[in-house]
Amino acid sequence: MEGPDLGAFSFGLDDLAEAFASLSMFPIFEIAHYILMCQAVRSDSGGLTLSRKHPLANWVCCMLMCSAGGFISSLLLGLPLIGPLSKTPNVLLASAIWYLEFYAPFDLFHKAVTFLPIKLVVLSLKEIRRAHKVPDGIATAAKVHPHGYVAHVVIACVKGAGSGFMLNFQRLVRGKWSPETNQILHPTVVLKECLISAILFTTGVLPINQDQLLLLTGIVMVIVKVTLTLTNVSDPFKPIENVLCMPIFGKVEAMAAEKKKKE
Amino acid sequence: MEGPDLGAFSFGLDDLAEAFASLSMFPIFEIAHYILMCQAVRSDSGGLTLSRKHPLANWVCCMLMCSAGGFISSLLLGLPLIGPLSKTPNVLLASAIWYLEFYAPFDLFHKAVTFLPIKLVVLSLKEIRRAHKVPDGIATAAKVHPHGYVAHVVIACVKGAGSGFMLNFQRLVRGKWSPETNQILHPTVVLKECLISAILFTTGVLPINQDQLLLLTGIVMVIVKVTLTLTNVSDPFKPIENVLCMPIFGKVEAMAAEKKKKE
Amino acid sequence: MEGPDLGAFSFGLDDLAEAFASLSMFPIFEIAHYILMCQAVRSDSGGLTLSRKHPLANWVCCMLMCSAGGFISSLLLGLPLIGPLSKTPNVLLASAIWYLEFYAPFDLFHKAVTFLPIKLVVLSLKEIRRAHKVPDGIATAAKVHPHGYVAHVVIACVKGAGSGFMLNFQRLVRGKWSPETNQILHPTVVLKECLISAILFTTGVLPINQDQLLLLTGIVMVIVKVTLTLTNVSDPFKPIENVLCMPIFGKVEAMAAEKKKKE
Repeated sequence: MEGPDLGAFSFGLDDLAEAFASLSMFPIFEIAHYILMCQAVRSDSGGLTLSRKHPLANWVCCMLMCSAGGFISSLLLGLPLIGPLSKTPNVLLASAIWYLEFYAPFDLFHKAVTFLPIKLVVLSLKEIRRAHKVPDGIATAAKVHPHGYVAHVVIACVKGAGSGFMLNFQRLVRGKWSPETNQILHPTVVLKECLISAILFTTGVLPINQDQLLLLTGIVMVIVKVTLTLTNVSDPFKPIENVLCMPIFGKVEAMAAEKKKKE
Repeated sequence: MEGPDLGAFSFGLDDLAEAFASLSMFPIFEIAHYILMCQAVRSDSGGLTLSRKHPLANWVCCMLMCSAGGFISSLLLGLPLIGPLSKTPNVLLASAIWYLEFYAPFDLFHKAVTFLPIKLVVLSLKEIRRAHKVPDGIATAAKVHPHGYVAHVVIACVKGAGSGFMLNFQRLVRGKWSPETNQILHPTVVLKECLISAILFTTGVLPINQDQLLLLTGIVMVIVKVTLTLTNVSDPFKPIENVLCMPIFGKVEAMAAEKKKKE
Repeated sequence: MEGPDLGAFSFGLDDLAEAFASLSMFPIFEIAHYILMCQAVRSDSGGLTLSRKHPLANWVCCMLMCSAGGFISSLLLGLPLIGPLSKTPNVLLASAIWYLEFYAPFDLFHKAVTFLPIKLVVLSLKEIRRAHKVPDGIATAAKVHPHGYVAHVVIACVKGAGSGFMLNFQRLVRGKWSPETNQILHPTVVLKECLISAILFTTGVLPINQDQLLLLTGIVMVIVKVTLTLTNVSDPFKPIENVLCMPIFGKVEAMAAEKKKKE
């Protein structure tokens, strides 16, 4: 009796990874992204008041969030900051989503995309887009600085979790200023995912090729997001951080105790 | 009896439009612009205290305002941000105006340029400069992104109404921070003029050529500015907006009423 | 009896100036700079709390300060903003210093480099690095705008006194926002030194060559810094400013008196 044909299975996985890597983000995945970004502006600005009183500021906020990774990575790489706005089809598509999200009759669009089953699909599509942005960011950075590995990781994080960095600036457009927090001070789960993924892509320590790593990243990101949405787990990285940070960066309590002794 | 020779008249208009389009902005129109920008810093900072206590910050504020459109459009287009400061003749001219505005004996310069007849001339020259900045901005943006039409409109607005966007940053240099307002949240009349003009230039819907459109823009801008200065009309676009915004973006009051019903 | 061979002495000075100008900043002078920048973040954030609670924000703050001149001058010159992060050896060295400064056992590193004799050496090395940054900044700016002399001076100041401009942004990363002050409003002594040095380099009014001017700048900067550290002199430029500013920019008191009269 023969064992399973592992070669064929492995070939099948390669095929899947390759197909996953060559997925086109426009328009399906971009639409999911735009929906979530417009929703983020809507919930962050506390409802529909902004959209009624300041439609221009509302549109600018949504565009900033929809192309957050593009804007910030262009700024960091010395490329035209307006680059994302120059892709006219993307801007028109994002504007259409923006209009539907805020001004659709009876708020039907918003009600539809926040209906849990649809929401989970949208969130999953968005996470797949995020996974693609990591190697995409590394490739963009490598064109400008071939050996700037730290820069590659930074750009991958910015492309993958750009909206988190843009949040404070988007608020500023709306006349709100919240300097007390930002994504560097309080890293989000998605930023940590992008950071780990970018380090794995840049260093190549895992014994799998780039397409397979991308597939793995995508699967993990979707699972994490769906889990976080359905349960009330806050941050799956917390336990690992607690174990790792203490020996590397010292303990807060230890510091406090030491200070007290001195006094 | 023959009718008037319309062909000749049309030719004369073409000539005028062409001459208007080829007007050199340096130095007359730039001087008018620099005068108004230094006045803006002076009135925004509440008089002469800044100029006496912090001459360097005062100079930086004025330079930021004088080249506001240049700085912001350079940032957006990925061009050297310092570009406007590298035009040494312009910087020296602006610095001379800055010195006259703030440090002239007996404040004679300021008194002269705020004398109403002179002020109207200065304002008109400045509006003609603004009109020229719109096609200028479109041309600059088209060099970087030939088909990014949204980007063209954005850059034209930034070039035409740049000082309004720079206001908050100029205040920051003086140690004041006013995040609660900005030109996107509360669009100024000049921003609306630039936006409409830029859309007309980009789409080309009017049956006139670019030079004629520029002349038309210039005339409208001068008339609007002079009217706003002499009368207490606040915003000539308000009535049109009130009519257009309601069907497109919904009504604030309707929203509020709907909310109350639910409660 | 012959007089001293002045030619030989002059040759020796030229040699010294040339050797000084060709000093490599990496790694010794960079290490001194990194130590002082990490110390600045540590004292500005009020001790070790930030390093224990937010290691990522702490690292980003230190990197922003270590490459402050590089980041700001890249932004102004339209070069990739991430450029300084793409020099991997420098980033790794700065990260090592950051780790030693904040997380070394028993805080030994910090205690060593704040021990006065060592501190004076570190401060002197840093000032020599600063002196080199002035002609370095002018050369970088001249590559982009050969005749933009104002821009040359600005870039030289940004490269020489960049950390002072970065201070407010570094605080923002830590969630603190201090808009009420900045280095333009309240110029530091080092900014004034860089400004004067940059003007001397750009105009070439002194009858010495560039290498000798660099040596002179370096000596003056070291002397000023050591004097300011050992004594409680606050600003050696104050008396000169008081004499020069009154006739050029008018007197604050005179203004106040004039206002009172009117009332």
